[in-house]
Amino acid sequence: MSLSLGEIVNQLGGELIGDSRVIIRQVATLEKATPDTIAFLANERYLKQLQATGAGAVIVGEQLRNSLDIPHIVAANPYAYFARTSALFNPQAEVAATRHESAVIHPGAILGESVYIAPHVVIEEGARIGSGSRIGVGAYVGAGSTIGDNGTLHPHVVIYHGCRLGRSVIVHAGTVIGADGFGIAMDQERWIKVPQIGGVSIGDDVEIGANTTIDRGAIDDTIIEDGVKLDNQIQIGHNVHIGAHTAIAACVGIAGSSRIGRFCRIGGASGIAGHLNIADNVEISAHTLVTKSITEAGTYTGAYPFERNRDWRRNAASLRSLGGLTGRVRALEQELKLRKKGTS
Amino acid sequence: MSLSLGEIVNQLGGELIGDSRVIIRQVATLEKATPDTIAFLANERYLKQLQATGAGAVIVGEQLRNSLDIPHIVAANPYAYFARTSALFNPQAEVAATRHESAVIHPGAILGESVYIAPHVVIEEGARIGSGSRIGVGAYVGAGSTIGDNGTLHPHVVIYHGCRLGRSVIVHAGTVIGADGFGIAMDQERWIKVPQIGGVSIGDDVEIGANTTIDRGAIDDTIIEDGVKLDNQIQIGHNVHIGAHTAIAACVGIAGSSRIGRFCRIGGASGIAGHLNIADNVEISAHTLVTKSITEAGTYTGAYPFERNRDWRRNAASLRSLGGLTGRVRALEQELKLRKKGTS
Amino acid sequence: MSLSLGEIVNQLGGELIGDSRVIIRQVATLEKATPDTIAFLANERYLKQLQATGAGAVIVGEQLRNSLDIPHIVAANPYAYFARTSALFNPQAEVAATRHESAVIHPGAILGESVYIAPHVVIEEGARIGSGSRIGVGAYVGAGSTIGDNGTLHPHVVIYHGCRLGRSVIVHAGTVIGADGFGIAMDQERWIKVPQIGGVSIGDDVEIGANTTIDRGAIDDTIIEDGVKLDNQIQIGHNVHIGAHTAIAACVGIAGSSRIGRFCRIGGASGIAGHLNIADNVEISAHTLVTKSITEAGTYTGAYPFERNRDWRRNAASLRSLGGLTGRVRALEQELKLRKKGTS
Repeated sequence: MSLSLGEIVNQLGGELIGDSRVIIRQVATLEKATPDTIAFLANERYLKQLQATGAGAVIVGEQLRNSLDIPHIVAANPYAYFARTSALFNPQAEVAATRHESAVIHPGAILGESVYIAPHVVIEEGARIGSGSRIGVGAYVGAGSTIGDNGTLHPHVVIYHGCRLGRSVIVHAGTVIGADGFGIAMDQERWIKVPQIGGVSIGDDVEIGANTTIDRGAIDDTIIEDGVKLDNQIQIGHNVHIGAHTAIAACVGIAGSSRIGRFCRIGGASGIAGHLNIADNVEISAHTLVTKSITEAGTYTGAYPFERNRDWRRNAASLRSLGGLTGRVRALEQELKLRKKGTS
Repeated sequence: MSLSLGEIVNQLGGELIGDSRVIIRQVATLEKATPDTIAFLANERYLKQLQATGAGAVIVGEQLRNSLDIPHIVAANPYAYFARTSALFNPQAEVAATRHESAVIHPGAILGESVYIAPHVVIEEGARIGSGSRIGVGAYVGAGSTIGDNGTLHPHVVIYHGCRLGRSVIVHAGTVIGADGFGIAMDQERWIKVPQIGGVSIGDDVEIGANTTIDRGAIDDTIIEDGVKLDNQIQIGHNVHIGAHTAIAACVGIAGSSRIGRFCRIGGASGIAGHLNIADNVEISAHTLVTKSITEAGTYTGAYPFERNRDWRRNAASLRSLGGLTGRVRALEQELKLRKKGTS
Repeated sequence: MSLSLGEIVNQLGGELIGDSRVIIRQVATLEKATPDTIAFLANERYLKQLQATGAGAVIVGEQLRNSLDIPHIVAANPYAYFARTSALFNPQAEVAATRHESAVIHPGAILGESVYIAPHVVIEEGARIGSGSRIGVGAYVGAGSTIGDNGTLHPHVVIYHGCRLGRSVIVHAGTVIGADGFGIAMDQERWIKVPQIGGVSIGDDVEIGANTTIDRGAIDDTIIEDGVKLDNQIQIGHNVHIGAHTAIAACVGIAGSSRIGRFCRIGGASGIAGHLNIADNVEISAHTLVTKSITEAGTYTGAYPFERNRDWRRNAASLRSLGGLTGRVRALEQELKLRKKGTS
């Protein structure tokens, strides 16, 4: 595919500064760009690379409007503009609507039109696959589960029985949706299993990374609303509810029955304890454990600041007697106050 | 299925207060319960929902015996009672003892009676599958490995060679048992692989969540005793030994050769360093890293307390000079002592 | 297999002290060793076990040369010597170069000589499998991806399209290489997907554990250099670059575009934020979050020191006002200085 800068701006908007006839064939990073590619500035720390880039054009924000000699497109949101540009040059590959003979599809399953079924897929009784969906190699759709239209299951995705995925949901390889939640009750020195009879309900336009796990509800469903984006290796416990358009980075764990608001951003490897409420528009930093409900939007953090091991040793040892230190400071303050009285 | 409250109490014990003829058809949450369902109070924070519930009956503890107008069952352990009630209404589905033609079973494997083998299963030479077991879609059982009676492997579980699972073990989708432990030795600026020749030995009544990994031993076996319950995405290193009835929440990592006691409870995303001993009945809080052996029962914690990012910034910066602060307080204390001497 | 101690030293070097005719049949742990096995001392904390061992011989370092009555091999690097000894007694099993009839191999894929293809494997168009490679049950190799010579994919490994693995790479079960990176741009209250058009490039002699995920690059490739060793359940974000011979323990997450040096050692469940540079020979302790680039070799740590819950409660509460405490100490210091002036 090749498009002139003029054609790109015609299709996507933004303001072009420079020669509209320059031909672009692909997107590129600033560092490796060639004259037939377009790059973008995502992050101020790459300004030096912008100066040295070999790109035919770049996408920048308003503040760089007058700082560049090469053709550039000024966009209100350069990263989103870049995303759309890349989608122009990299349309999703068409997949033929075939059904591989090694797939095992129960006669009581219902498949929409133009569905691609890869080798070794298994689809159980009562499952429904929406039109235009692609079910990747070895993926499994349990009894009565539903994949909405234009869904994509990458290889080896496992959807247990009784789960519902909305339209245009993408699930990456190895992800497991609908396994039993961790419901156990201690009784006479033995754990009894609590049957997990809820399902998982996932909205439209959700994307889920690789090797993530979303447990089915204990009684009611686990719920992921529209537009949620989950990275790899995330663990969502039973009966969690995630509000629309929340984005969660890799390795996060959310314990059972917690409710996350809309438009939250949850940093990598952070955790949310069970039975909490997190308001809309909350940002959680990486490696933070949230142990109480959060009622106000804002950024919350709880990572230990790393340092050289020898410094950490000293500070961490002091941390173990910090409660005592606080008491000692209070005692000093009292002592000085008393003396003040004595001398005044 | 439908049972009267009287029949439930007949089968499960507990004390019924209210009309024994009320008909129950399913368990429910307090919030969504209807008159033909029975709910329970798991957690004091749901007391408000108890007052407003539409349930036909509820399961409660002794302390709520006289606080309710609707029929209720008083149980010493309401959550365990609920687990048994739910199991009554939700018995495990029967699965026909069939063997799908796409499964590849080595003639030297031994299958017990009434075994269900799903499509695309592979069972290698010398493996044994106990009677009544269900081997899910695409599951793999390596050479010489044993699945005890009434075992359940969910889809895509991988059991490497030379592993042993006891009776009534449940393994959820995507879990890998018996992969090589992380045994590498640095030699002349190259890592050499240490052959991992031990196996994995898992007791009876163990349940393992989805996408968990349990490595085979370097020389001797990795051992999981009876009744252990593991959640999703847990990592168990080589030669770890987990005592009976210990429960481990999701995303925990246990490094090689550590030995965990019986009846421990290990919170989500916590970690245990290698070569440690953890006593029986130890509780580890979520996100805690255990770096020393624990010889006494009790609860141990090491999570950074989260707060608003601006507060965290200030406190975390101070933490970086906490060792110095401790010294400054000591100096102040000395100074005041000296003056005291001087003035007295 | 059986070898005398003399034969072992002939093959592997080291200095034998004791009877060279002793016959060894296998390696063993000190604890469970029998007279026909050889053990080693990996860790000073096992010295007591060394004294009580039933082994026929042990591998030790220089410092134990004169401390043992039983035959022993003195090696400069006992653990590496043990690794080589174990490899002698446990050579990799030969696998017949067969291709199972249930495998689905695109006619446009290219397979080298002596390749083993297990049941239910799928290899897409343009993929290449190097000579001597073993592709395990249900593994998937996407279009145009390359597995170098002597590669091993364990069961259910998923390699997306356009990825390249070097020679002698081992990938354990359930690992996913080349899934889309987490590239999303917020635009008008909706997340737009940024196409992930880079690949993954993995060098020679790399080993990757089970259920690990390595994302494809957003534009350029994600790169793992020669000799890197990755444990289980690691998450490598898009465009990460890992230098040669770096070893990473389980459950680590590395965010997008970070660059890790050579010969680094990264402890379990630690994390590295995005867009950072980590120098060569850096060691990161377990559970540490690295939030800034590291320019000097050394050990860096950031784990909260765990303690009994009641102590943690007190200290963690004080941590929340540590910034204030620092100010109070400064005030006390000022106060005393003033008084000193006043009295002098």
